[in-house]
Amino acid sequence: MLKGIVPPLITPLKDRDTLDVGGLERLIERLIAGGVAGLFILGTTGEGPSLSYRLRRELIDHTCKMAAGRVPVLVGITDTSFTESVNLAKYAAAAGAAYVVLAPPYYFPAAPPEMLEYVQDLVAEMPLPLFLYNMPGLTKVSFEIDLVRRAVDMPGICGVKDSSCDMIYFHRLIEVAKQRPDWSILVGPEELTAEAVLLGGHGGINGGANLNPKLYVEMYHAAAAQDLKRTRELHAQVMQLAGSIYTVGRHKSAIIKGIKCGLSLLGVCEDHMAEPFHRFRDPERLQIREALQSLGLLD
Amino acid sequence: MLKGIVPPLITPLKDRDTLDVGGLERLIERLIAGGVAGLFILGTTGEGPSLSYRLRRELIDHTCKMAAGRVPVLVGITDTSFTESVNLAKYAAAAGAAYVVLAPPYYFPAAPPEMLEYVQDLVAEMPLPLFLYNMPGLTKVSFEIDLVRRAVDMPGICGVKDSSCDMIYFHRLIEVAKQRPDWSILVGPEELTAEAVLLGGHGGINGGANLNPKLYVEMYHAAAAQDLKRTRELHAQVMQLAGSIYTVGRHKSAIIKGIKCGLSLLGVCEDHMAEPFHRFRDPERLQIREALQSLGLLD
Amino acid sequence: MLKGIVPPLITPLKDRDTLDVGGLERLIERLIAGGVAGLFILGTTGEGPSLSYRLRRELIDHTCKMAAGRVPVLVGITDTSFTESVNLAKYAAAAGAAYVVLAPPYYFPAAPPEMLEYVQDLVAEMPLPLFLYNMPGLTKVSFEIDLVRRAVDMPGICGVKDSSCDMIYFHRLIEVAKQRPDWSILVGPEELTAEAVLLGGHGGINGGANLNPKLYVEMYHAAAAQDLKRTRELHAQVMQLAGSIYTVGRHKSAIIKGIKCGLSLLGVCEDHMAEPFHRFRDPERLQIREALQSLGLLD
Amino acid sequence: MLKGIVPPLITPLKDRDTLDVGGLERLIERLIAGGVAGLFILGTTGEGPSLSYRLRRELIDHTCKMAAGRVPVLVGITDTSFTESVNLAKYAAAAGAAYVVLAPPYYFPAAPPEMLEYVQDLVAEMPLPLFLYNMPGLTKVSFEIDLVRRAVDMPGICGVKDSSCDMIYFHRLIEVAKQRPDWSILVGPEELTAEAVLLGGHGGINGGANLNPKLYVEMYHAAAAQDLKRTRELHAQVMQLAGSIYTVGRHKSAIIKGIKCGLSLLGVCEDHMAEPFHRFRDPERLQIREALQSLGLLD
Repeated sequence: MLKGIVPPLITPLKDRDTLDVGGLERLIERLIAGGVAGLFILGTTGEGPSLSYRLRRELIDHTCKMAAGRVPVLVGITDTSFTESVNLAKYAAAAGAAYVVLAPPYYFPAAPPEMLEYVQDLVAEMPLPLFLYNMPGLTKVSFEIDLVRRAVDMPGICGVKDSSCDMIYFHRLIEVAKQRPDWSILVGPEELTAEAVLLGGHGGINGGANLNPKLYVEMYHAAAAQDLKRTRELHAQVMQLAGSIYTVGRHKSAIIKGIKCGLSLLGVCEDHMAEPFHRFRDPERLQIREALQSLGLLD
Repeated sequence: MLKGIVPPLITPLKDRDTLDVGGLERLIERLIAGGVAGLFILGTTGEGPSLSYRLRRELIDHTCKMAAGRVPVLVGITDTSFTESVNLAKYAAAAGAAYVVLAPPYYFPAAPPEMLEYVQDLVAEMPLPLFLYNMPGLTKVSFEIDLVRRAVDMPGICGVKDSSCDMIYFHRLIEVAKQRPDWSILVGPEELTAEAVLLGGHGGINGGANLNPKLYVEMYHAAAAQDLKRTRELHAQVMQLAGSIYTVGRHKSAIIKGIKCGLSLLGVCEDHMAEPFHRFRDPERLQIREALQSLGLLD
Repeated sequence: MLKGIVPPLITPLKDRDTLDVGGLERLIERLIAGGVAGLFILGTTGEGPSLSYRLRRELIDHTCKMAAGRVPVLVGITDTSFTESVNLAKYAAAAGAAYVVLAPPYYFPAAPPEMLEYVQDLVAEMPLPLFLYNMPGLTKVSFEIDLVRRAVDMPGICGVKDSSCDMIYFHRLIEVAKQRPDWSILVGPEELTAEAVLLGGHGGINGGANLNPKLYVEMYHAAAAQDLKRTRELHAQVMQLAGSIYTVGRHKSAIIKGIKCGLSLLGVCEDHMAEPFHRFRDPERLQIREALQSLGLLD
Repeated sequence: MLKGIVPPLITPLKDRDTLDVGGLERLIERLIAGGVAGLFILGTTGEGPSLSYRLRRELIDHTCKMAAGRVPVLVGITDTSFTESVNLAKYAAAAGAAYVVLAPPYYFPAAPPEMLEYVQDLVAEMPLPLFLYNMPGLTKVSFEIDLVRRAVDMPGICGVKDSSCDMIYFHRLIEVAKQRPDWSILVGPEELTAEAVLLGGHGGINGGANLNPKLYVEMYHAAAAQDLKRTRELHAQVMQLAGSIYTVGRHKSAIIKGIKCGLSLLGVCEDHMAEPFHRFRDPERLQIREALQSLGLLD
């Protein structure tokens, strides 16, 4: 059962369709050294849906090889095409990944009974345990709590990652998961990991851990140990990181751009973005540099 | 320059990932016999984003071969991955398609300046003239009018298909298109084709034309000829078809399910749906049968 | 039965809670001279929900007196409080108004069965014929077509004003209204009045008619006479007015601010706005001046 | 400075426009006996926007008299009319209320600079300290964090009630409030009060406290005392109450209907609802009865 901080890796790119393999290796070593509990690739932070299938497979191969069994690899298989999701899951299993992660198909919004049928059909084809990934801000629809209640009876499902920002929903997940002690309930937005773990959650899939894995891992351990004072101190630091790195520019893409730009400034990897985005230009890059300095991550 | 009714073909399926080739052939013959001005595959009605890439390529091949130059083939290349859109466009060009059609990437919502850069980058890679396809209900973001004004300067763009249901936007498109007499401005929802053409639009990409191509083609010609009386009569028939076929069941998928079920009852092709949807069961099928009878399309 | 252009009057204000009585009189005379079919006060363009009840009553009194039976007065009674809607309707009836106009209560979104019960209860208390006013952009919920179908059986209802911008909905209204030949189906956004009337609607409640009533009245008559060529010419002029006056500034309040500013420049009335809005400052005022000059409304 | 549980009182009604005065008295005594820190009337749970102004004033009078200085009274003055908000605030001050509470005007969505100007203008007219009430689900717009940062410089503002369900926003409020140690930051949804207080918030304005004030007060004290184990136990009970009482029926009005129905079953007051809502009928009432029995609130 997965517990702790599982960073959603950004995808280091040299160009629109070229993986920055050296950057990926440095990023993975940095994260494992920081104490993370797993590596999640091809999620939202990883710009999964923006990458070609060829590049997705290349990324799976490299990541599984580099992780080398030290921590489990989770692979995002979210797709609007059922068949492509299955193909990717099979590829991930063959490459040595441990889990697959699935958000709802994001072109057509499936109604609740349609979504249930979809999940049942898909789970039947999965070679690996599956996390449901709730991300209504981007997929338009949720895995509703009633669906999650039905998922309790599906052995192929092993937990939920919730990026809805809706902590009422998250607390309902915790309730449902009492029937499946093998399930992990993980939270997406890092600003919510403290309370998620204090009140019964199992960890966080937090983008900022790309930049500062130790901070997030330490906050997780403080919260899991019910050390409220220390959790609050570290939560304030996480809020400071998010408040300074994710607010550069006015677009929603600022989070991923900010993390990639920061990693570039830290010398970890290149900051090329997949279309429809482009990396920060100089003025924004300067703001990220100053933010990293304020956070004590850069001299 | 494209004018008239271009049906967005449903994709006849035998199974989740198996094309109903015979059904496709019957559908195409039926549409061409009905007088359509082109064939648009891999759009929303065609469940494009739900199909595997292998099947998309197979569909492109068969459609171009079956059309055999009698009418132009338009191929949807909408994708969240820039590289896959380019791949598909190149495949379509090689197979003999005449145009490609692109809605915004639909996972990450690009802000207006990001979208402009994306369109500029993509058009530069296109081997065929490109239609912008405005579909905010499913892609979350629009091709805003300011972007369309910029697109006037891009020779690779040849028009806009608007499925926003926002006729104010459509009238602004018509204004902008005055600077590009080679552009076609086509409307998506068939309930709006009459007014779109009466007030300066060039045609419709209307799902119901799968079922009754002659009705839509005749309405287009009446409106283009400014025959208001006849246009109103035919518009009332289109409203009746949409009102009876698209309102079975409560989910948004009812439109595509209804058209496919109807074509199955008419003996044209199978009505299998791609996930996350499934075809109508018997009670809904009975309602569609009765609707087709009321419409005089079935005895 | 009401047919033609019924302008939704802006409310001329001298201050937050002070009516510009002279301005109101000049506005009303201008509109009646322009050939309008009625005067609608306390609608969205009239900032109805932003005004104190005292001022709403004062406005009703003055308008009914100034109209003096030359054209009917329609009074907006939309409110989140049922009792206040009823109070206002009774006040309007006593003052000599001809109709009341009701959008859904706009704080709590009523579900369809709740809305039906609300409408039934309210109609039972109405001293005047009631127009349903569909305005989902501001009230969050619609009067759904199924509710309108039920309203056919309510003698107290006399029509629908639709400001949804959804012409599919509008065409369904026209269908339903065939059962009630006494109903008027009027459209809100002026960019849609041409097609609304060409395809069976009865007129428009168009904000721009405050500025140029003759243009809108002439367009209505051309469309009602099925003179398509002339309708298109006048529609292009309406598009030009809306495109230049309503697009100053980036906020949604630009439409009302633009109309009020324009009327102030034309010497009709003051342009004070009710909170939460404030009138345009000098740079925007200059843009409106130039727009009015381009439109030929100001030297 | 206000800390603890401040229930948003439902408004006991005998009829659409008739206060259930005896019920109000029993409710207030029950809440004060339960240890609440204040009484908030005319909020969302109180159906404030649905009540006539006459009834709102009557409710203010009775509540202030019945509270008799034992706990402070907070009065909702949210309105689409600036003048009516000011009138209500003055009335509340004269009647002996301690605070007023303001959500954004909810018909026209004010853009951020418009909202700032509105808040500045309104605060200047306030006779009592003002809470900002963030409720975007019903008002369409938020008091954005940038506005709250500006509000730090307005002495007339004394805190924020946040009902957005967005705990990231809530944590930003806590950060901002460090500059104003006199501010109270209170959370709306009761499912979030535990974490809100554990991580620095000052209490909750929780609808369920109408039914079981002791539970919410005890949870607040456990969280304020940083007793995590006890907080979790009580949070689970709150989740159970919310999960069983607020989920009867499918409409969003289920929360208020459920609380009122429960209070009626407990013999506290009548359960009449203001339009556009109506009280639960027998089948729903039976479900509420069973829920209260499971919760141990009814034999």
